[in-house]
Amino acid sequence: MSKISPDRSATSGWIEHDIHHLPIRVYYEDTDFSGRVYHASYLRFCERGRSELLRHYGYSHLDLAKEKNTSSVLFFAVHHMDINFLASAEIDNVLTVHSQFTGSSGARLFINQNISNGDDPVLRANVTVVSLDSNGRPCRLPTKLRSIQLNAFS
Amino acid sequence: MSKISPDRSATSGWIEHDIHHLPIRVYYEDTDFSGRVYHASYLRFCERGRSELLRHYGYSHLDLAKEKNTSSVLFFAVHHMDINFLASAEIDNVLTVHSQFTGSSGARLFINQNISNGDDPVLRANVTVVSLDSNGRPCRLPTKLRSIQLNAFS
Amino acid sequence: MSKISPDRSATSGWIEHDIHHLPIRVYYEDTDFSGRVYHASYLRFCERGRSELLRHYGYSHLDLAKEKNTSSVLFFAVHHMDINFLASAEIDNVLTVHSQFTGSSGARLFINQNISNGDDPVLRANVTVVSLDSNGRPCRLPTKLRSIQLNAFS
Amino acid sequence: MSKISPDRSATSGWIEHDIHHLPIRVYYEDTDFSGRVYHASYLRFCERGRSELLRHYGYSHLDLAKEKNTSSVLFFAVHHMDINFLASAEIDNVLTVHSQFTGSSGARLFINQNISNGDDPVLRANVTVVSLDSNGRPCRLPTKLRSIQLNAFS
Repeated sequence: MSKISPDRSATSGWIEHDIHHLPIRVYYEDTDFSGRVYHASYLRFCERGRSELLRHYGYSHLDLAKEKNTSSVLFFAVHHMDINFLASAEIDNVLTVHSQFTGSSGARLFINQNISNGDDPVLRANVTVVSLDSNGRPCRLPTKLRSIQLNAFS
Repeated sequence: MSKISPDRSATSGWIEHDIHHLPIRVYYEDTDFSGRVYHASYLRFCERGRSELLRHYGYSHLDLAKEKNTSSVLFFAVHHMDINFLASAEIDNVLTVHSQFTGSSGARLFINQNISNGDDPVLRANVTVVSLDSNGRPCRLPTKLRSIQLNAFS
Repeated sequence: MSKISPDRSATSGWIEHDIHHLPIRVYYEDTDFSGRVYHASYLRFCERGRSELLRHYGYSHLDLAKEKNTSSVLFFAVHHMDINFLASAEIDNVLTVHSQFTGSSGARLFINQNISNGDDPVLRANVTVVSLDSNGRPCRLPTKLRSIQLNAFS
Repeated sequence: MSKISPDRSATSGWIEHDIHHLPIRVYYEDTDFSGRVYHASYLRFCERGRSELLRHYGYSHLDLAKEKNTSSVLFFAVHHMDINFLASAEIDNVLTVHSQFTGSSGARLFINQNISNGDDPVLRANVTVVSLDSNGRPCRLPTKLRSIQLNAFS
């Protein structure tokens, strides 16, 4: 009843075979009156996955946003998503978001994501994000992020 | 300061050339710390557009969900979305969601949607929704909805 | 089927007896798996009501945020809320948010809000918001807003 | 770079001195254009805390909702909240939600909650939830939950 968890921080997931895994509990807020998870909630889950993927590579949104160099990346904006909704999920389910960099080009970063419920696939998405500078203009990805790309797929 | 609006109901938009138009004000809740609209908020806006499009054809989610016939449509679930994010939008902007049926097939309904900010395109999406019965299984679309399809594109 | 609405802008509500009225349609996004409106959705509705109340007095969040004077109001932050949830609401319902300034003190603005579903009360809230400057410090309310207070209750 | 976390499930927090602790990472979705956490996001965080508190006592929303006995608890609805917003929080922060049962009465359950950012208090809330049966009517709390109350404060 009062088991002490060994890890008291928020789950930030883990990397395995270049794929980031983030477990996510479904709460009231994620569901809708159909009794299942609201479709746009999965996009929030995917965004958490991408944020934790970036964190594993040493980037935090807060640090990026506080960057003083006006030509540096400040934000990532979603540019394109192709999403297949494969199955529904319910409150209390623990889903896993899988996120993998699949390439980059200039300001664009390509990421494959899928969400599973145990062994069952729930969603599959191809996502393109764009790095933006302080003027909201596309700018080159951070060097470290580009080089990680190369390592991951060489 | 105390102008009385002639129309005191919630805006449900209007149809013009088979395209439904729904004006949507951007509020605090729709934005994120980048200062712009959070990407998943646009999916909520699109869903409002589809709900009002259905309402214009005489369907309400509440009525559908209360249907006693177990083989009738109870819910619509999003099956596939392909989304291009074309520009950002800000708080206080009034966006317009344009929604148009483009076809149907069995349980599936195809809808084109785009969001504009004045004359500027903000988002373009192709959406497939599926009608589900009380067991969560795909079921044929309501007759009226299928026939409306035919009229719209004949 | 293709009735043209006379008012093609987003509903911004109206003022009557010093009370702002904002009609709000309940969508999928606002509900949870209990089949009713998710409790925190009402706070989003209240915030829309406060934003439209401010707009009726000539203030937009976008203009305030772009203010260059560093001691001017940039944002409003919620400081305190006391909320009674009186009844549930369902998808497709059209609720009305009623918002009224009840006083001000320095950086603080007091607002009474309630939400009704037709004649039925759904929620009642007392809200205190604080005006913040560019350093996130409380700052005096805009003069115009304070004087409106006085007029409203003299 | 590819550290394997020992705990691969979603964080469900832990109990210490009758207080449940749930760590929560702030993501894009939780923020608004002021650059800070959107006020209603904290209510979602509190709800996650209450759900995990109930889970520690053996209750899941999914199990409760599937209960066939029509006079049994199906849902918990928030009845009253008194909320003080004490400080702002930012993206990437790891907050902790503290939740404690403080009593019960018939269908009502009283819970104290606060949210901290490291050592800094962010929010303090008193919450009353009500247990509802399949007809949406208040019903007695589950026996086990009432007895836990007594143990906790004897």
